Amino acid sequence: ATLMAAPLQAREALASWNDGPTRQAIVDFVARVTTTGGPDYVKPEERIAVFDNDGTLWTEQPAYTQLLFALDRVKALAPQHPEWRRKQPFKAALAGDVKALAAGGAKPLMELIATTHAGGGPEDFQALAAEWLAHAENPKFRARYDRLVYQPMLELLDYLRANGFKTYIVSGGGVEFLRAFAERAYGVPPEQIIGSSIVTKFVLVDGKPALRREAKIAFIDDKEGKPVAINAHIGRRPIAAFGNSDGDLEMLQWTTAGAGPRFGLIVHHDDAAREAAYDRASPVGRLARALDEAPQHGWVVVSMKKDWKVVFPETPKP
Amino acid sequence: ATLMAAPLQAREALASWNDGPTRQAIVDFVARVTTTGGPDYVKPEERIAVFDNDGTLWTEQPAYTQLLFALDRVKALAPQHPEWRRKQPFKAALAGDVKALAAGGAKPLMELIATTHAGGGPEDFQALAAEWLAHAENPKFRARYDRLVYQPMLELLDYLRANGFKTYIVSGGGVEFLRAFAERAYGVPPEQIIGSSIVTKFVLVDGKPALRREAKIAFIDDKEGKPVAINAHIGRRPIAAFGNSDGDLEMLQWTTAGAGPRFGLIVHHDDAAREAAYDRASPVGRLARALDEAPQHGWVVVSMKKDWKVVFPETPKP
Ligand SMILES: [Ca+2]
Ligand SMILES: [Ca+2]
Repeated sequence: ATLMAAPLQAREALASWNDGPTRQAIVDFVARVTTTGGPDYVKPEERIAVFDNDGTLWTEQPAYTQLLFALDRVKALAPQHPEWRRKQPFKAALAGDVKALAAGGAKPLMELIATTHAGGGPEDFQALAAEWLAHAENPKFRARYDRLVYQPMLELLDYLRANGFKTYIVSGGGVEFLRAFAERAYGVPPEQIIGSSIVTKFVLVDGKPALRREAKIAFIDDKEGKPVAINAHIGRRPIAAFGNSDGDLEMLQWTTAGAGPRFGLIVHHDDAAREAAYDRASPVGRLARALDEAPQHGWVVVSMKKDWKVVFPETPKP
Repeated sequence: ATLMAAPLQAREALASWNDGPTRQAIVDFVARVTTTGGPDYVKPEERIAVFDNDGTLWTEQPAYTQLLFALDRVKALAPQHPEWRRKQPFKAALAGDVKALAAGGAKPLMELIATTHAGGGPEDFQALAAEWLAHAENPKFRARYDRLVYQPMLELLDYLRANGFKTYIVSGGGVEFLRAFAERAYGVPPEQIIGSSIVTKFVLVDGKPALRREAKIAFIDDKEGKPVAINAHIGRRPIAAFGNSDGDLEMLQWTTAGAGPRFGLIVHHDDAAREAAYDRASPVGRLARALDEAPQHGWVVVSMKKDWKVVFPETPKP
């Protein structure tokens, strides 16, 4: 995956990005860090780029995809759990009250995941998630979730990798959920995926070693957890970070505060016609502090409406 | 680091390994998994090899290197901590009672590390460790620690990488301590190092983002923690595992229980003349259960005495 291809020309590589200052900022940054002998040259092994997932690489509307997956799991398992009818967050899940769940951030989602997906191993869970993704349909866009990735961001991932970057996902979503689709969808292999997790234990079952997922949250990879997890996992400070909400604020701060050339980018959802328009008031992907801090740090703010020729790889059915 | 070199011939690559069944087992395994179209072919991205560090890649005699480092830190910081004279494990550390500390396994070592290295960031800690490694001398071999790596294992790392393997370190030692030297010593970059850790927090210091290490153990990467950490970090089950003690038992079990071709190897320290002879009764690197289980799992047991032409890259001064 890290074999160096011939560098893509920006022209063909970022085909879905309109000409303008946003696209130019990306191209300029990549040129600076890849120019051998230049003042801002960065060795390939230090070209680490970190990407948030929900709202940055694929849609998080009408709710986080993993939350919608968890709701379906709760419904499937509910007959065995009559107590869920009176207990939060299960009660809200069974009522399909996505708004109430989403408003709580990553935690109720992780509680649902922890409870409804404990027992098996990571491979079992990934199989469940992959099976669901292969059939489930996003209720807003009436399309499979893995078709609701952002075409310009796919091109950006390719462009960075073609220029010697190693691309990581750093998401509040569950790491095993991400691993169920991220390699196929984004070309990001399992070892480059950092996410939230539940406690996993090593056990011997009839003498056969296995991993078992327990109904307990181990780590929430959101906000100040993101730089911590990046350090634990990668051990290098990234030189570029891409996000869309206040959950990415600390990751953007930490990435761009390093010495030498740095790049921060925020995907701003301002395209009600093609996807959705939301920021400060949204319970999903709230973007306020990071937007306020963007100018002082020089973070690039993408206008989906102005900067992107298309949003999704194919126009989803209405 | 992962650019594919032309595959090394086993002859030149494993020059410090004597001919015999151990060396042959390594060469045969690599040939099986790299033969395109063969029944045991494994795609390069799945050629994951995990290596324990202490006693597997470098000496752990007369004690774990990081423990000796921690003792020096305790001594350096003791004037500011009069209470340490009456409190374990500091009392043992100040008395230089390595035996008592080593007998407790990774935990007292991690407690010393947690306490004596909290406050700064990962980069500060790595600088401290690198500075110490550049000057400190192993009391048994009278040589710098980074010269007490095993030459045959360096060749094995190279040989595997030349055959498309991705090599990881999975150690009970602290991840930031390992990162202070492992890239230079073993060619293993920071993102391929998995180790024990202390709690690290994101903070803003005068508005500047930083990471701060706290005096609290976060994770002990030993025994059943090793498969768990491998899954969290890599997300693939390795196809080859290399260790030297019962701390590697679960990693070996989990690795070699997977489907398809698998390889497990134990470095058995049976060379009192050139390094040390120890196994079942040793507080450092105790090897008993893994040695007993080796035959039933087909794990290769290396005799340092018989299988290795040399132990260290250069004969350490007497
Ligand atoms: Ca997001
Ligand atoms: Ca060991």
